[in-house]
Amino acid sequence: MNHPSRRDFLKGMGASAAALSIAGRPFSRRLAVAAVPTAAPQDEGGTKPMGYAVVGIGSLAMGEIMPALVKTKLSRLTGLVSGHPEKARHFAKTYGVPEKNIYNYENYDQIASNPDIDAVYIVLPNSMHAEYTIRGAKAGKHVLCEKPMCTSVKDAEAMIAACREARRRLMIAYRLHYEPYNLEAMKMCRERQFGPIRMIDAEFSFVIGDPTQWRLKHDLAGGGSLMDIGIYCLQATRYLSGEEPVSVYAEAWSSDPVKFKEVEETISFTLRFPSGLIANCHSSYGTDGLNRYRAGGPGGWVEMDPAYTYVGLVQRSYKEGKTTTTEPTTWDQFVAEIDAFSDAVNHDRDVITPGEEGLRDMKILMACYESVRTGKTVSLA
Amino acid sequence: MNHPSRRDFLKGMGASAAALSIAGRPFSRRLAVAAVPTAAPQDEGGTKPMGYAVVGIGSLAMGEIMPALVKTKLSRLTGLVSGHPEKARHFAKTYGVPEKNIYNYENYDQIASNPDIDAVYIVLPNSMHAEYTIRGAKAGKHVLCEKPMCTSVKDAEAMIAACREARRRLMIAYRLHYEPYNLEAMKMCRERQFGPIRMIDAEFSFVIGDPTQWRLKHDLAGGGSLMDIGIYCLQATRYLSGEEPVSVYAEAWSSDPVKFKEVEETISFTLRFPSGLIANCHSSYGTDGLNRYRAGGPGGWVEMDPAYTYVGLVQRSYKEGKTTTTEPTTWDQFVAEIDAFSDAVNHDRDVITPGEEGLRDMKILMACYESVRTGKTVSLA
Repeated sequence: MNHPSRRDFLKGMGASAAALSIAGRPFSRRLAVAAVPTAAPQDEGGTKPMGYAVVGIGSLAMGEIMPALVKTKLSRLTGLVSGHPEKARHFAKTYGVPEKNIYNYENYDQIASNPDIDAVYIVLPNSMHAEYTIRGAKAGKHVLCEKPMCTSVKDAEAMIAACREARRRLMIAYRLHYEPYNLEAMKMCRERQFGPIRMIDAEFSFVIGDPTQWRLKHDLAGGGSLMDIGIYCLQATRYLSGEEPVSVYAEAWSSDPVKFKEVEETISFTLRFPSGLIANCHSSYGTDGLNRYRAGGPGGWVEMDPAYTYVGLVQRSYKEGKTTTTEPTTWDQFVAEIDAFSDAVNHDRDVITPGEEGLRDMKILMACYESVRTGKTVSLA
Repeated sequence: MNHPSRRDFLKGMGASAAALSIAGRPFSRRLAVAAVPTAAPQDEGGTKPMGYAVVGIGSLAMGEIMPALVKTKLSRLTGLVSGHPEKARHFAKTYGVPEKNIYNYENYDQIASNPDIDAVYIVLPNSMHAEYTIRGAKAGKHVLCEKPMCTSVKDAEAMIAACREARRRLMIAYRLHYEPYNLEAMKMCRERQFGPIRMIDAEFSFVIGDPTQWRLKHDLAGGGSLMDIGIYCLQATRYLSGEEPVSVYAEAWSSDPVKFKEVEETISFTLRFPSGLIANCHSSYGTDGLNRYRAGGPGGWVEMDPAYTYVGLVQRSYKEGKTTTTEPTTWDQFVAEIDAFSDAVNHDRDVITPGEEGLRDMKILMACYESVRTGKTVSLA
């Protein structure tokens, strides 16, 4: 994994005054809907910004992604794909998207002939990621797909193959790879500023609301808190250590067997890495407000708490007996992530978090569930 | 486990201005040696304070326990047991202990006929705890014994039996059961101030110094970081949840096979409790400065960081969207712990952390090592 420097990302990242809200999703920030841009943005070189069709108008698209596409420099919202025509028309009007660029799940493939749309951003329930990525690639569009990439290793492989065949880029929306404090933490660990990393502990939890939502249905989500938020802990262990785990052990439980009939509420997993390093991870849909990781070595440690929210991230590091604490973040992670994808496509460069990165996670997530089922440590070698 | 209220402990607890030092042991506080008390202290009722012989003059005895015995209200230092006569004479003089009350490991049993000595405080390497507890009880003395209680379940059982037979009290020096912030955290969790506790994560690490010290020798320590500091994480999971674990899974590793030839450097263990609760624990002799636990439920969480130091403990709790942070502690945990033992003996009351409490930990610690050896989850039922 190669990462641009912190400075590259800080550059051009507009500070947002939006406050962190804990309501609903643990990292939500409910903004008043942004105003219609008066003119299409142009990047510094005068290149036409990449046009994105957002596929799926759920809370993430409404609260974060569409508002971010107003602030991006290299990207703009040019299409919408939704099963709800009225909702689509409402947001098309709000964001200045022509009505002709609204699609539904049946006529989605017709985006192929729409030159306004260069890429699709898949923001659907997890189990739909594969189909809409593959159809998007077949329609000749680049694909930015939310995490988790999908719900099976087989689907992840099919998504990669489809994009490769169509000669289109595939990026998984691991936004923290584009977030300065996380990049700084990676750098500290990879440069061995604390010596070799010998312990990582990561936790992410929130209390899930509406018991009828798709995240609690196995067919749509592919799993419970692990797929949705445990994946952030897994990602942190991998991007901080720079290593790939060789084994995993996991245990899961649910305090409410009715609400969590189909997917796990809480899961703990222990990863072993080639250096010997052990990482403890813990995610839950039944505990409020855990949002943290810490990586340590003989020379100290770096912590993020909160680590995974959209704004308000705080980094603490400890070295030579001194603790340093940053200000909470205010920048927009989605702006950075989306423009990073546009930039890679524009310059025909590899993306930082390609499909292969998502596939690696899918293999580990599935191994976690295998460990829960068997009660045994699962080898990833 | 029954615990007195926070108020009981705050009462009469002298604040210490000593600063937290990270040098050497992770929770060390190196004080100038206290002055000789000019008169023997008396408790409020005029009862003669309990006389303690400290058995083993190592860094803990020198840095914490003997200085604490100057500040205790119900307890005072009246004897010393050491293999180093000159060191013993030096500290006898410093603390006003008569020379006749100095013993060595051979004539230790003669404390039986010394009325100045009511109790022994065992501060020896772990594997010597059993012998000196049993000989102390046989000499008719009450026994306060440092943690870990010993190095095997069999020894723990023999220690309990010996004290029962001699009709003497046995207490394991789990000082955090006598520390107000930890008591407050217990109370918050047991009273379900956050709802039922659904996640606990605990870490304790420091970089161990001198490679020749007894803590790195299996015969003396009985294990590595688990026995010395992982036990604090285990204790936290038990006293916060109020439950006894039903299974444990553990993995261990050492980055330096020479320094850690006999005992583990780093160990991760996952405990499962009857309610379903999972706790992740992590201890290391190879990582600097991790010292924390957090317990959370649907209504929020309580964290201690640092959690296990002698002074400077900080509690953060999160409830109803609000985070509360305490001032760092300044009180002397050893004063509270030792006087709690004297008080229990004086009033012929059960102690809060008896031998049975230590025995429970010994069974779990040994199960951790069994899990490391076998690679399997070990049942504790």
